[in-house]
Amino acid sequence: MSTPEPIKWENGSLYLLDQRKIPFEISYVKCVNYIDVAEAIEDMIVRGAPAIGIAAGYGVVLAAEGGICGVQSAIERLSKTRPTAVNLFWALKKMEEATASFLKATDCKCSSSESVEAKLKDHLLETANKIHQEEIQIENLIAFYGQNLLPERCNVLTHCNAGSLATGAVGTALGIIKMGKAIGKDVRVYCDETRPLLQGARLSAWELWTEGLDVTVICDNMAAFLMKKGGVDLVIVGADRIASNGDTANKIGTYNLALLCRHHGIPFYVAAPRSTIDMDLVDGEAIPIEERKPEEVRSFGGAKIFLDDISVWNPAFDITPNDMISGIVTEVGILEKPYERSILEAASKSLCLEDIKKAEESIGK
Amino acid sequence: MSTPEPIKWENGSLYLLDQRKIPFEISYVKCVNYIDVAEAIEDMIVRGAPAIGIAAGYGVVLAAEGGICGVQSAIERLSKTRPTAVNLFWALKKMEEATASFLKATDCKCSSSESVEAKLKDHLLETANKIHQEEIQIENLIAFYGQNLLPERCNVLTHCNAGSLATGAVGTALGIIKMGKAIGKDVRVYCDETRPLLQGARLSAWELWTEGLDVTVICDNMAAFLMKKGGVDLVIVGADRIASNGDTANKIGTYNLALLCRHHGIPFYVAAPRSTIDMDLVDGEAIPIEERKPEEVRSFGGAKIFLDDISVWNPAFDITPNDMISGIVTEVGILEKPYERSILEAASKSLCLEDIKKAEESIGK
Repeated sequence: MSTPEPIKWENGSLYLLDQRKIPFEISYVKCVNYIDVAEAIEDMIVRGAPAIGIAAGYGVVLAAEGGICGVQSAIERLSKTRPTAVNLFWALKKMEEATASFLKATDCKCSSSESVEAKLKDHLLETANKIHQEEIQIENLIAFYGQNLLPERCNVLTHCNAGSLATGAVGTALGIIKMGKAIGKDVRVYCDETRPLLQGARLSAWELWTEGLDVTVICDNMAAFLMKKGGVDLVIVGADRIASNGDTANKIGTYNLALLCRHHGIPFYVAAPRSTIDMDLVDGEAIPIEERKPEEVRSFGGAKIFLDDISVWNPAFDITPNDMISGIVTEVGILEKPYERSILEAASKSLCLEDIKKAEESIGK
Repeated sequence: MSTPEPIKWENGSLYLLDQRKIPFEISYVKCVNYIDVAEAIEDMIVRGAPAIGIAAGYGVVLAAEGGICGVQSAIERLSKTRPTAVNLFWALKKMEEATASFLKATDCKCSSSESVEAKLKDHLLETANKIHQEEIQIENLIAFYGQNLLPERCNVLTHCNAGSLATGAVGTALGIIKMGKAIGKDVRVYCDETRPLLQGARLSAWELWTEGLDVTVICDNMAAFLMKKGGVDLVIVGADRIASNGDTANKIGTYNLALLCRHHGIPFYVAAPRSTIDMDLVDGEAIPIEERKPEEVRSFGGAKIFLDDISVWNPAFDITPNDMISGIVTEVGILEKPYERSILEAASKSLCLEDIKKAEESIGK
């Protein structure tokens, strides 16, 4: 059994796996225009930094029928969906560049000519597909390099869902874990349930379980005690945005875990494609942290738990300082401290074609 | 508005507020025999270390109709309900001693005489009432001494519910907060929601809100980020068992908070009556930690979140080492390090009658 694809492009429409309903219902939401896609991102039908980027790319394709003006509106609307994950802006920039290069080649502007629109759409679809396909290669590489961090026999703790459902490929943090298993390591996984939306319990645990891994769910507040009892050898998480110094925004609770790791002497790794790195930011202080609606905390799996009169604070992400991160696993290798330097170096590296092949073979085992 | 009483003795029966249904339903479960009480403790209809002790005391009273044998069975059964909170065993010991002193006075053994049973019941009810009434005095004192820890204007974070609902009186951690407000301090409270049973969100937030405090609920994994942003001046929690060196068992997640406090330089206090101290234990290692059923993590309020096939680890408590605790607030003052000494000294102290009066006056404001 394997995890269903979170993002599918079929017959000119985008189909998004409704991740709010996992694991009890496998259903897809059909998006026929960019507004559908924007709302799906906001409502977290699709979530996870790389997956948001991929979905946004296809969202722009859906706008091509409205010509260049349609594309511009789509990019504007999609960029306002969620503020923290930088992959969204990275993908939209790619789509914008593709549009510009198309314009340059065809030398037309806000055109409404049908044939031009069709050509634009083809061009944008090619770009969106490329983003999607490259993500698959990239994550295989992350998994391939990252599995070196796993001892032959180990207990890994992860937070939220940095898996197939979040990325449209093998996953980042979960990709490493799956690769470890694929090449024969004895990997046990603890999934933090990850309140408020329970992506760890609902998505990661299910994704790993369907792929045959030994997985145990804990509540977020149990990780410290588990570590104290010697139950965790390393922690691996994904990322929503990494500043140029390595400071990392990821799902709320990540900073907590990093602190616990420091106290217990446990390695703490981040796994993410380079598209998650925001070279424009000197450090994590400038990363915008989305605050989501209180209803997410006021209810649990659809069941209401307390009164609307009581206030809630609901930040969706937190920032882990670079000095608490033991390594950042990317598609060009594992980056080490000082991150200012290793991130800069990583930016200009090419993917290793030989490793792409090896990674594909290993994960397919 | 004030919090409903969690434990009421009326017309020869024990009525327990069903805390599983708070805040959406205020209803009482009637217990007519000790088995009802034992099951209510196991099912967490009544919870919180002091409240469990008080309820168990009344549970023994309900067994008196079965004579000395009934009382012995009740003590045996009730002592098997929950392993961690020592107040349960403390209260049962009080009831056992009361039975022994009654036996000695009346010079009878496993008697079935009706008049003897009635007398025994009266005697035990007197003891159970005394446990209950003394708890009220004790907690007023804890609140009175503990409020000195609150700056004039402060943000306090608390975990689980160490309030009226947990204790049958003003509360321990929450008692301090309420006292702070009563004497005019500007106290804002953050309540960790406290998975899996959400006592923080359902009980503490509601209890404080009904008493007019400014309260905000956060998920357990948000505390670290809140502290990093400077949002927490101090943490106060209750306790389920304190070893003679100050190591403290409390609701799962407490150790996590203590670690976060250490890293952020935030004081971390425990508030508990001396009945929570287990002088027989050298340190926290020997405190038995209850592991509860996986269903508590798999669902909440009837909403299931993941499949039964996936494993769960569900410890109900954790242990915070004494060196992470800034002070332990008791009814004879705030104990400081080294706790081996201060706890030993506290054991022999009498309550200050003058302070009992002052405390009553202050909380009544």
